[in-house]
Amino acid sequence: MAAPKLGEFERIARFFAPLAAPEGLGLLDDVAIIPGPPGEQYVLKTDAIVEGVHFLPEDPADQVAQKLLRVNLSDLAGKGAVPVGYLLTTALPRERDEAWLERFAEGLARDQREFGIHLLGGDSVATTGPVTLSVAAVGRVRTGEAVLRAGARAGDAVFVSGTLGDGALGLSALRGELPELTPTQRDFLADRYRLPRPRLQLGRRLIGTARAMMDVSDGLIADLGHICEASGVSAVVEAARLPLSPAARAAIAADAARLGAALAGGDDYELLFTAPADAAAEIAAIARETAVPVTAIGRIERGKGVRVVDAQGAPIAVSDAGYRHF
Amino acid sequence: MAAPKLGEFERIARFFAPLAAPEGLGLLDDVAIIPGPPGEQYVLKTDAIVEGVHFLPEDPADQVAQKLLRVNLSDLAGKGAVPVGYLLTTALPRERDEAWLERFAEGLARDQREFGIHLLGGDSVATTGPVTLSVAAVGRVRTGEAVLRAGARAGDAVFVSGTLGDGALGLSALRGELPELTPTQRDFLADRYRLPRPRLQLGRRLIGTARAMMDVSDGLIADLGHICEASGVSAVVEAARLPLSPAARAAIAADAARLGAALAGGDDYELLFTAPADAAAEIAAIARETAVPVTAIGRIERGKGVRVVDAQGAPIAVSDAGYRHF
Repeated sequence: MAAPKLGEFERIARFFAPLAAPEGLGLLDDVAIIPGPPGEQYVLKTDAIVEGVHFLPEDPADQVAQKLLRVNLSDLAGKGAVPVGYLLTTALPRERDEAWLERFAEGLARDQREFGIHLLGGDSVATTGPVTLSVAAVGRVRTGEAVLRAGARAGDAVFVSGTLGDGALGLSALRGELPELTPTQRDFLADRYRLPRPRLQLGRRLIGTARAMMDVSDGLIADLGHICEASGVSAVVEAARLPLSPAARAAIAADAARLGAALAGGDDYELLFTAPADAAAEIAAIARETAVPVTAIGRIERGKGVRVVDAQGAPIAVSDAGYRHF
Repeated sequence: MAAPKLGEFERIARFFAPLAAPEGLGLLDDVAIIPGPPGEQYVLKTDAIVEGVHFLPEDPADQVAQKLLRVNLSDLAGKGAVPVGYLLTTALPRERDEAWLERFAEGLARDQREFGIHLLGGDSVATTGPVTLSVAAVGRVRTGEAVLRAGARAGDAVFVSGTLGDGALGLSALRGELPELTPTQRDFLADRYRLPRPRLQLGRRLIGTARAMMDVSDGLIADLGHICEASGVSAVVEAARLPLSPAARAAIAADAARLGAALAGGDDYELLFTAPADAAAEIAAIARETAVPVTAIGRIERGKGVRVVDAQGAPIAVSDAGYRHF
C-alpha cells in the first residue's frame, strides 16, 4: 500500500466533510449541534485517547479516565455548553485486570461528581493493541448561543485562558527530557499533561462576548488556524505575550526552542477565543469571577493563515519541532 | 497483574452501572434515551468494531464501513427508532493508505443514502494496534414509544426476524471451516457476516405491538437473557423452531454441533422481541408488509434465565462452544 500523503485535516476535508449533515457544521467546527427540548440545542462531541499517544502505560487508571472525560468536557466548554452525559467505548487487552478497571471507574465517578455529568451507555470490546478509549459527550446550550469557530472578524482580539505549553512540556518531563527543572516543576507540568482542567464556567460566561471559540488541543497555531479557516480571516500572535507557567518559563529559559511547546504543542485544553477589542474590560471581569486567568495574545486580520511575531514585530517560523527566527 | 475474572456483563454491572444516569436506563438496555424536540426523544447508542474480531484484515474497506454503521443502526432498529446521524471515531495505523480511507468513505456514503443518516462529526487518532472503529448513533422516537428490553411479561411469545446463525457461520466459512458447503452457500454466509441488514422498517412497525425488543448481536441466548434480566422474567426457546437459512441448515446437517451458531453465535443483527401471544396474526401482517420474515421461537415465563428445549421438550444445554443434550 502507498504511504499516506495527507495530514489529518486534509483527510477529514477530502473524505469525511462530503458526508456531513448540516448539523455537523461541515466538520469545520469540532462539534455537531442538533435540536433539543424547547429553547435548547444539544452539542455533540467525540474524542478518543490511545495508550502511548495521549496517555502513558504507567499512568494511573483513574487519571486516564479523568483525562478521557476532560478532553471531551473541554470541547463542550469551548462552545459554552453545559455537560449532560456521555457514552463510553473501551477497547482493552483481554488480560487487563479488574483492579485497573475498578480504578478507571473511580476516576470516572470522581469527575462525574465534579462536573455534573453522567454515563449514558457504552460498549466494551477486546483489542490486541494499545488501550483505546472513546467518549461521545452530550452538552446543552440555549438555542443559537453556542460559540462556534466561524464567528471571528478582522479587528477582534485573540485571547487564551490559563497557560500554554504545559501539556507538551509535561509529556517531555514524564519522558525524562527536562532534567534541569526541579522535581516540583516537573510534577506541575506532568500533572497538567495528565489532568486537563476543562474551563466550563469560563466558556459559559463568554457566551455573548466571545465571537469565535474552541479549546486548544492540537496546539495554539493549529487551533487558531481552524478558527481562521472557519471564519475566513487570518491571525497574528505575539509570542512575547503567550501566558506561561513558572515551570514552562524555567524550561524555556534553559532551551529557547521549547517555546514551540506553547506555540505548537498540544494537550493544553485551554480556551482560545476572539472578541471585539473593546470587550477587554468585560473579559477581565469574567476572568476574575471564574478565577481563570485570560490573556490577550494577538489579533484577527483579513487574509488567511496564522503568523507569529516577536516583541519587535519580526516574524517567527513555527514547525512541529519548535520554532526559529528568520 | 491478576487475570480478569469477570465477563463483560459482570464488569458492566459492577463497575459502570453505578455511574449511569437515569437516562442510561441502568445500562440494562443497550441505548440511552434523552429528551428531544417537542414530542420526541433521542435514542443514543455506541458500538465499536475491531479488526481481527468483528471484521477481517482482508475485508474490503467499504464493507467494513457499512458493517460499522449497520451494527449501530441495528440497535436503533431494536428500539423502533428512526436514524438521525452519527459521530465517527477511527483509530488507524499510521501507515494505512488513502486508498483504504477513500473506499471506507465510499461505504459510509452508500449506507448514508440507503438509511437516511448523516455524519455529524468525529475524531481520528493513530494506533499501533488493530484498526478500531467506533460510532455513536443518534436516532429519534416519539416520546415514550421506544421499545425497551424491560417490557416482557410471562405469557408473551418470543419472536425473531430473519434467520439465526448465519453471522457466526459466515465467520467460520471465511476461516475455511465449512469445506463441505458449496461456494454459493459459503458466499451467502460470508455476506451475512460482513453486511448486517438493520431491520429499521420492521422495528418501527413493531412499536405498539412488541413489548420488549432488542437486536441480536451477542447471540440469541445471551440477548434473550438480557431481555429476561431487564424484565424480571424467564424464557424458553424451542430449538426446532429456530429460523435457519438453507446454507445454515446445510452446515448444521453436516455437523449438528453447529446449531450452537444459531443459539449462541453473535453477529446476526436480527430483531428479537416479545409480544402477547394473541398478536401473532398482527405480527405476521407486519412481517409481510416489511418483507422481513418473523418466526415465533418460544415463550416468556415467570422465573429467571433462558432454557432451550428440543422438539420433545427435553432441555438442551448451550455453551459458547456449541450445544449438547443432557
